[in-house]
Amino acid sequence: MNPIRRRGLMLVLSSPSGAGKTTIARKLLASDPQLAMSVSSTTRPPRPGEVPGVDYNFVTIERFREMVAAGEMLEHAQVFDNYYGTPAAPVREALASGRDVLFDIDWQGTQQLRQTARSDLASIFILPPAVEELERRLRGRAQDSEDVVKKRMAKAGDEMSHWPEYDYIVVNHTLDTSVASVQAILAAERLRRERQVGLPDFVNGLRSRT
Amino acid sequence: MNPIRRRGLMLVLSSPSGAGKTTIARKLLASDPQLAMSVSSTTRPPRPGEVPGVDYNFVTIERFREMVAAGEMLEHAQVFDNYYGTPAAPVREALASGRDVLFDIDWQGTQQLRQTARSDLASIFILPPAVEELERRLRGRAQDSEDVVKKRMAKAGDEMSHWPEYDYIVVNHTLDTSVASVQAILAAERLRRERQVGLPDFVNGLRSRT
Repeated sequence: MNPIRRRGLMLVLSSPSGAGKTTIARKLLASDPQLAMSVSSTTRPPRPGEVPGVDYNFVTIERFREMVAAGEMLEHAQVFDNYYGTPAAPVREALASGRDVLFDIDWQGTQQLRQTARSDLASIFILPPAVEELERRLRGRAQDSEDVVKKRMAKAGDEMSHWPEYDYIVVNHTLDTSVASVQAILAAERLRRERQVGLPDFVNGLRSRT
Repeated sequence: MNPIRRRGLMLVLSSPSGAGKTTIARKLLASDPQLAMSVSSTTRPPRPGEVPGVDYNFVTIERFREMVAAGEMLEHAQVFDNYYGTPAAPVREALASGRDVLFDIDWQGTQQLRQTARSDLASIFILPPAVEELERRLRGRAQDSEDVVKKRMAKAGDEMSHWPEYDYIVVNHTLDTSVASVQAILAAERLRRERQVGLPDFVNGLRSRT
């Protein structure tokens, strides 16, 4: 009863800010020891409490540019003066040894991942159940001006326009159901034929004795 | 909190005889009111205890041939002097109204379904965990001669060679785990973007108010 050797997968979660994605990701990680969060690299300085190698890999601009030039970033983006990106090496290593990697990235990052790693990718877009719920969550974050909330809502609307690029769509009515949905997607994706790379040997072993 | 309108899917289970597929199918059907078994049509006479419309639709050879000629069979096969096939109309109706249909068919039937209904199909191949287990089940069915058991084993080996044509592979180590695996696949397939046909309206509704 040896388990069949398998290749890991990249599970991407995207959503408009305020749809509940980060909470879902946290619950999913806590429930599944085979799944690890991808750690991004960034050129911005650490904030108080951030742990290098856990929250981010903190690197210099020179090192970041080197990695991009050498094709060592699966995806990257510039936000104001800072760069953010996903180093390829730890992801490749995880997949080869049958571990899965979770990505909490936006539609632009997902588009880049798709180009470099299509067959390893399973992508999920989380939608809010209603616009009132989205607004409540975006408003609840801090005591922001009406103007700031409006800008966030407009940005959320933009992000939402990219749902047709994703494999699966989960509407986040209740947290527990959404976590169960993402767990089912992960379980199913692990059972896809092409991810169970040990199957040819396994079936040959069975057939040789029938 | 209206559920998003969705299109049903065709869930195909195939396996060599003796791998446990029929028991898995029965448990799955009992656990899921949204899922119904596809009822085949056949030209063979009913056996004692078989209920028309539940076990099979019993039809004449003339009617069967008419249906095949009119494209009203999704797949069909001849076994000795009898014909078996899946009528298209009830399946099309189920899918359009968001209900899912389970198929317990072999690799030949699955190949035909794939040609007529690729995007509605999710196919699962069930494998036995070990050849000893397969033999035990094939032997356990009745007091058959060694020769009959050997022929069944050879047929199972043939059937198994078709695993690479399936989307998902489940190795039936224990019944409960296998049922949970098939349930996860069904849950995930229901969350695929293209099956949630009400999504464009739903997202437009959200976005119009951001």
